[in-house]
Amino acid sequence: MTDNRIYNFNAGPAALPLSVLEEIRDAFLDFKGSGMSITEVSHRSKWFDEVINDAVERLKRILNLDDRFTVLFLQGGASMQFCMIPMNFLAAGGHADYVNTGTWSTKAIKEARIQGKKVDVVASSEDKNFSYIPENITFSEGAVYTHITSNNTIKGTQWAAFPDTGGTPLIADMSSDILSRPFDADKFGLFYAGAQKNMGPAGVCVAVIRDDFLSMVPEGIPTMLKYSTFAAKNSMFNTPPCFAVYTVQLVLKWLEEDIGGLEKMAARNRRKAEMLYGLIDASDFYRGTAARNSRSMMNVTFRLPTEDLEKAFVQDALDNGLGGLKGHRSVGGCRASIYNPTPMAAVEALCDFMKTFESKKG
Amino acid sequence: MTDNRIYNFNAGPAALPLSVLEEIRDAFLDFKGSGMSITEVSHRSKWFDEVINDAVERLKRILNLDDRFTVLFLQGGASMQFCMIPMNFLAAGGHADYVNTGTWSTKAIKEARIQGKKVDVVASSEDKNFSYIPENITFSEGAVYTHITSNNTIKGTQWAAFPDTGGTPLIADMSSDILSRPFDADKFGLFYAGAQKNMGPAGVCVAVIRDDFLSMVPEGIPTMLKYSTFAAKNSMFNTPPCFAVYTVQLVLKWLEEDIGGLEKMAARNRRKAEMLYGLIDASDFYRGTAARNSRSMMNVTFRLPTEDLEKAFVQDALDNGLGGLKGHRSVGGCRASIYNPTPMAAVEALCDFMKTFESKKG
Repeated sequence: MTDNRIYNFNAGPAALPLSVLEEIRDAFLDFKGSGMSITEVSHRSKWFDEVINDAVERLKRILNLDDRFTVLFLQGGASMQFCMIPMNFLAAGGHADYVNTGTWSTKAIKEARIQGKKVDVVASSEDKNFSYIPENITFSEGAVYTHITSNNTIKGTQWAAFPDTGGTPLIADMSSDILSRPFDADKFGLFYAGAQKNMGPAGVCVAVIRDDFLSMVPEGIPTMLKYSTFAAKNSMFNTPPCFAVYTVQLVLKWLEEDIGGLEKMAARNRRKAEMLYGLIDASDFYRGTAARNSRSMMNVTFRLPTEDLEKAFVQDALDNGLGGLKGHRSVGGCRASIYNPTPMAAVEALCDFMKTFESKKG
Repeated sequence: MTDNRIYNFNAGPAALPLSVLEEIRDAFLDFKGSGMSITEVSHRSKWFDEVINDAVERLKRILNLDDRFTVLFLQGGASMQFCMIPMNFLAAGGHADYVNTGTWSTKAIKEARIQGKKVDVVASSEDKNFSYIPENITFSEGAVYTHITSNNTIKGTQWAAFPDTGGTPLIADMSSDILSRPFDADKFGLFYAGAQKNMGPAGVCVAVIRDDFLSMVPEGIPTMLKYSTFAAKNSMFNTPPCFAVYTVQLVLKWLEEDIGGLEKMAARNRRKAEMLYGLIDASDFYRGTAARNSRSMMNVTFRLPTEDLEKAFVQDALDNGLGGLKGHRSVGGCRASIYNPTPMAAVEALCDFMKTFESKKG
């Protein structure tokens, strides 16, 4: 660890690769010989063109996307997507399936219904506090799309494999696991992710849209809420969030060039998650909260015997340079978010700390 | 000028105070002893709370806003406001007045009409290519609001004083002149500004809303498009664009503590504009494009005798460390944007260059 830096297990905004942060810092007063900061260059300049084009190309290469897919940089986070998706794709008479696996799915469903759109919640894990991913789902006939949340940051669950919808295109909120593992994009009409977990800082949401979904965008809705507006202008209909796009570009470069691509990223993520879950499973002191076959490789949620011990654990960890281990305010307990940028060394340090804490207090 | 830095006359994203950029750079790996970058700290942490609360308090203090006003940090730029304003304030039967002074006003009007809202364009300067601000406007009876664009970045015009609407609250897009001069906020139900000109980087839009306007927000519109959503949560209903808010906070601190407040900022801006317009008016070579009584203190638009000379001017200037002087692609010519952060020395250097260029080519 560099001087003064902690190991950061925040759920989002979250840790970024140190080499990316150093590159931003070192170029901050003079971006590539422009004599300006990246925060000062015009989005219509060659400097920014290179940034956004490189980010788009890298994302398409990393995710193996063909020419039917367009990469968009949007604002408003995943929450704005909850509103835009039904507005863009559910015309009068159309309906969509939603699977409810937690807080964010619930919000996505709510935003479709606010607009009077027809939504079928075809499965939900609310009966067990969203601690598992539903299986054997019966999807409805003729849905325009099936919406899922690929990883549930708060509850610590993740779809191990995406469901077979019988041909209905998937739309997925991938905010907390995009770029963590390879997947077959062909099943998707749209997927999207707030950058602030696996991909960059807060302030930009990446959406990838397939051409058949792009062609569904209706006339008569506000310009800034149409996917086609951004697709037609390489995400620069108006000024994009330049600094956030730039940081995403550097994180994608790091994933390709330093990590070596998505398979290697996934292998590293598996090793990190297995190490943590292995410790939890071997212990009577720590208890995982998600069903085993639904466990997230990104957000490891666990409880200690008492809330007092959980409080002491979070504080003690911070005193030992391990930050962000408190569970989400809506569920309590503890959570270690181990997104792509989290190094193996951070997870090793956390495991060491957990063993020591158990031996002291267990 | 620091090594390698240019004088930056970009229209937006634009120059930021060098001291702000240096502070960001120096803290970039360890924000206030957190052991994290500002891009890595949680928006629910004490570190970010201090940032956003300080930004809100400073903006209220600088603009002399009383408790009826709420400061919001939003995403999507001013363009998203064009959509949100009629959606939030024009219920069935309500109508609004718009004054059309250029590209951005035109877009604001279009977005209200897309939603089927009733809009009266009570004045326009389109007859003379938007080169002036209309006077002696007859406003309509019973409008919910009158929308104006306080400064027109592209055409180089600015309202010298805000119009007397006979009591109808104003809504203003202040993207390119907020914080450049004092004004009486009492006349306004809402004003808003993309940060990337006078206030910070691209990626955040500041909106200031009065309580009577906040209470107009209807049920039944998407959560992320309601001003009340953000007002109820101190702009943190979902993850805000943390880095952009942080930069705005530092620019506000610079304006208060280094410049000495809004009166001093306005005086400096006047001096800069007078120096440039003075040179243009004394010359037969340079010709200002905006009507004299409508001239912008922020964007000085001018032509040279030929387009070839304009092209040579822009390139020669860049070779001499003066960047961003090309006019907007929709109008051509030259433009010097001299927002708050642009130092007097930059304008002096530009004037020296303009005199030299004229003596060579004039």
